[in-house]
Amino acid sequence: MNNETTTPVAVIGLGLMGRALAGALLKAGHPTTVWNRTAAKANQLVAEGARLAPTVGDALQAGSLTIICVTDYQAVHELLDAGDIKLDGTTLINLTSGDSAQARQAAQWAELRGARYLDGAIMAVPPAIGTAEAVILHSGPQSDFEAHKSTLDALGTVTYLGADHGLASLYDVAGLAMMWSVLNGWLQGTALLRTAGVDAATYAPFARQIAAVVAAWLPGYAEQIDSGSFPAEVSALETDARAMAHLIDESEAVGVNAELPKLIKAIADRSIAAGHGGEQYPVLIEEFGKPRND
Amino acid sequence: MNNETTTPVAVIGLGLMGRALAGALLKAGHPTTVWNRTAAKANQLVAEGARLAPTVGDALQAGSLTIICVTDYQAVHELLDAGDIKLDGTTLINLTSGDSAQARQAAQWAELRGARYLDGAIMAVPPAIGTAEAVILHSGPQSDFEAHKSTLDALGTVTYLGADHGLASLYDVAGLAMMWSVLNGWLQGTALLRTAGVDAATYAPFARQIAAVVAAWLPGYAEQIDSGSFPAEVSALETDARAMAHLIDESEAVGVNAELPKLIKAIADRSIAAGHGGEQYPVLIEEFGKPRND
Repeated sequence: MNNETTTPVAVIGLGLMGRALAGALLKAGHPTTVWNRTAAKANQLVAEGARLAPTVGDALQAGSLTIICVTDYQAVHELLDAGDIKLDGTTLINLTSGDSAQARQAAQWAELRGARYLDGAIMAVPPAIGTAEAVILHSGPQSDFEAHKSTLDALGTVTYLGADHGLASLYDVAGLAMMWSVLNGWLQGTALLRTAGVDAATYAPFARQIAAVVAAWLPGYAEQIDSGSFPAEVSALETDARAMAHLIDESEAVGVNAELPKLIKAIADRSIAAGHGGEQYPVLIEEFGKPRND
Repeated sequence: MNNETTTPVAVIGLGLMGRALAGALLKAGHPTTVWNRTAAKANQLVAEGARLAPTVGDALQAGSLTIICVTDYQAVHELLDAGDIKLDGTTLINLTSGDSAQARQAAQWAELRGARYLDGAIMAVPPAIGTAEAVILHSGPQSDFEAHKSTLDALGTVTYLGADHGLASLYDVAGLAMMWSVLNGWLQGTALLRTAGVDAATYAPFARQIAAVVAAWLPGYAEQIDSGSFPAEVSALETDARAMAHLIDESEAVGVNAELPKLIKAIADRSIAAGHGGEQYPVLIEEFGKPRND
């Protein structure tokens, strides 16, 4: 183990998120070199002790760890694919938003260029960077992650997902799907209750409790998916579908949006039509796992 | 306060749920009278100490508290609307599934017939009845609820929502909307991750954590709804919409169902088109709160 606690780091891309990343590294005491196409965005960071690199290539030579966070993967390649830029000798951590295919392609490209490469996804807004609330997902070779984890810890709660470089992006969008689902489920209920004069603050703790209770079922339900067997231990899908009809009817009767209830029921109805009415809810993975072609 | 710990109770309707309710009351030591159209369904309960009433009218005279749990509200009226049936003198707790309008109508009807009336909704499966896991919602006059709460406690976690008899049904379907939303958000993510060989059990704890974190935001977000003001303190809707496009693209690229991601984005896009792109997610209550007419 190295008892050195600071590591020279470079940050390429100084949008809101890049500036937050560089600021957190500086605050943790790491010598931090920054680069941005518009150099003026570095002013505050330079005042806080960052070194402004004159070129991208210079930034890449500054640290054994380079974090890049730009608009999209095309911008990553435009910046780093120039012939005179040396990538070998640094570990590139790409926190740019993209999809799993782009991450895997970028990993192949970086390997050809001699760089160590981790793909990452930031599940946080810029002001949260540097706090435990900021979850930052990483995927790629585990040894490269472990080598830099103590430095990355300055950014938030850093998590390693696996060797497949596409995992950070997949977990990111999966988590977002959960986030919007919880919010929309809550908004549907809030809209229903408001028709009876119940304010949102009164309903919210109830919704929060239901979400937490149901979330606690997920590990058990996951076992059904992994085993491919869905016995109706608690409830059969066809029973659920009758309650879904209630949700649609009530939403329409009180005059709120019924699109989400209708989608919930449509997916269940297709699974019932495919013969799964006597099985339990997680059997719907078969519907979620294939494209809807019609 | 009355230090009597047992109360004579009648249970009308002995389907799976009715039998579970009567069984829990018996187990708690309450003298329990039961009635069912098919009397044989009472056999086990009679063996456990229940008294079988020969008629519905007789059951209603047996206790100061009558719980009815039958197929639907029409069945409630068919059973109790006969001219020779006396409802005065009992408090009727209707745990039959229905909507808020049916509950309010039933309350008016019961009042005309001289009965005290509470409407209820059971958020549990029959095997959970009698445990704290079984949440049973009640709405109607608070004094009628308080008068019988100690008896109802035998059934599970009993909750009082308010004087409006429609509240139990509304909270029930609102909670179901949350339940299915959490499950579907999880299934979307599970389907995405499975394309990279990540099994459901590996992903489930991550999904559970996200759901719990987002659920904790709800009370704060509810304040925005109640105040009608949605400043983008954390994120603006138009930023969210770009991430929603990522979720759709990734779902389609890896070949899983994209219906839920598309609905998430469609609702946000309508709000952005209405001028709310710079506001925060809870502004979508305006979309959820009105019927979709097209």
